[in-house]
Amino acid sequence: MIVDISKKILIVGLGLLGGSYARVLKRFGFHISTITKEQSSIDYALGEGFIDEGSTELDEKIIGEADLVIFALYPHVFVEWIEKNQSLLKSGALITDVTGVKCSIVYKIQEILRHDVEFIAAHPMAGREVSGVENSTDKMFVGANFIVTPTDKNTKEAISTCMELGRLLGFSNVTTLSPEEHDEMIGFLSQLTHCIAITLMTCNDKENMEKFTGDSFRDLTRIARINDLMWSELFIENKEALLRQMNLFIDKFGELKSMLEKEDVDSMRKMMRHSTERRALFDKK
Amino acid sequence: MIVDISKKILIVGLGLLGGSYARVLKRFGFHISTITKEQSSIDYALGEGFIDEGSTELDEKIIGEADLVIFALYPHVFVEWIEKNQSLLKSGALITDVTGVKCSIVYKIQEILRHDVEFIAAHPMAGREVSGVENSTDKMFVGANFIVTPTDKNTKEAISTCMELGRLLGFSNVTTLSPEEHDEMIGFLSQLTHCIAITLMTCNDKENMEKFTGDSFRDLTRIARINDLMWSELFIENKEALLRQMNLFIDKFGELKSMLEKEDVDSMRKMMRHSTERRALFDKK
Repeated sequence: MIVDISKKILIVGLGLLGGSYARVLKRFGFHISTITKEQSSIDYALGEGFIDEGSTELDEKIIGEADLVIFALYPHVFVEWIEKNQSLLKSGALITDVTGVKCSIVYKIQEILRHDVEFIAAHPMAGREVSGVENSTDKMFVGANFIVTPTDKNTKEAISTCMELGRLLGFSNVTTLSPEEHDEMIGFLSQLTHCIAITLMTCNDKENMEKFTGDSFRDLTRIARINDLMWSELFIENKEALLRQMNLFIDKFGELKSMLEKEDVDSMRKMMRHSTERRALFDKK
Repeated sequence: MIVDISKKILIVGLGLLGGSYARVLKRFGFHISTITKEQSSIDYALGEGFIDEGSTELDEKIIGEADLVIFALYPHVFVEWIEKNQSLLKSGALITDVTGVKCSIVYKIQEILRHDVEFIAAHPMAGREVSGVENSTDKMFVGANFIVTPTDKNTKEAISTCMELGRLLGFSNVTTLSPEEHDEMIGFLSQLTHCIAITLMTCNDKENMEKFTGDSFRDLTRIARINDLMWSELFIENKEALLRQMNLFIDKFGELKSMLEKEDVDSMRKMMRHSTERRALFDKK
């Protein structure tokens, strides 16, 4: 479906991600519309030429004409939108999202959604430390992962279309995971790392530390500059999976502390060699 | 003393750091000698032209002629060297080091050292993930901190000379701290970060995670590739200070976990805003 550029794409929520989607998709010639909160975002995108039309209202014509609707909203806002406004969607429309957690969203949406509209969930694993459509870029997805998380309610066609969307957007790796696999993986690789960074950044308020900071500390706290509204919601939406990852970390950190207390050099060195070996797997290829 | 280029500098231990010192100091025209384990390191440095002479033995002439001796050895090897070989040092010589921990080294060396030789301790806060003189570079110190840690046994002249050494080497910030302040600071900024990185890298061995890794996880685990021999020794030499930092981290991480369990969004957002504000201090100027 996607490659048919006569199809109309609607992006709900024109921020950093929604804007970046629009920039890339417009290059292929699709008709791109948006429904978003701020008129200034629409004006900016019209000025840059990467949308065709937009509204801050629930414009029935824009919504009713869209063949593919991409929701780039906070998780609870997305669910509320579907609850209140799904009657406006075109029959046969495909909808997808950019939400960073899946189990708590996908099953809920698929349960409440009209039967003539299909929701195929996806997580574009890309971001920046800045937000807003003015910071959107068509280069954001190069080298990044696009993960489609189908359930048994999804058709093969919708899964293929969504994977094709990921490839069109320029993602380097487009794969599928179950919502459960996705949430465990993201709990570990993304959410746990943010928990660690903000803890490290706030656990010692001694003054003047910054004068002596080297690259290690800067690397570990780059993501400690964090959007509190979004991440607190993502953490809570993935509460159980994240708590499991936090506990794994706490247990291992406690083991290391105990090795140090006992001056158990052999165990410390074994853990460090394990770390070094495993890190090699994660080098950029 | 340092700016007098007729003075002879001996580097004991010609690895990554010792080699980088030699490369920079040679440019100023100093006579540079080395005592190091491997003949291949000496041959390499002679070939590159950044030392004048070297030996794998305790060459009495080389050691006895040196006005400034820089020990670039593992902490316990440095202490053993002084215990066994200090009689070979020239009367009036100044010695310094590169050790990453201070309290457990500085007082011990100053206690056992001959009274006609002065030890002024320093920590060049620079490193790479690779080791060996072949990886040494004269660019390693740009943007980095050089910390001199004097005690009341040090003369003003030795402190000035050591700070001048830091500036000659090209460090961007040359400062002094007490050994105690140094160890607390390094326990937090460097050692705790390494503890966190190796814990994150080893706490979840699930397969195929690397396929989905983004920049956050890579940033937090860059230093998880670690020299187990050196770091286990550094951790133990700074045990009490590091354990205090690990406990600060554990307590704060536990607070965050408790907020998540209770779904206390307000406290999570407050912690995230604190994190964001504090991280701004640590941006590169």
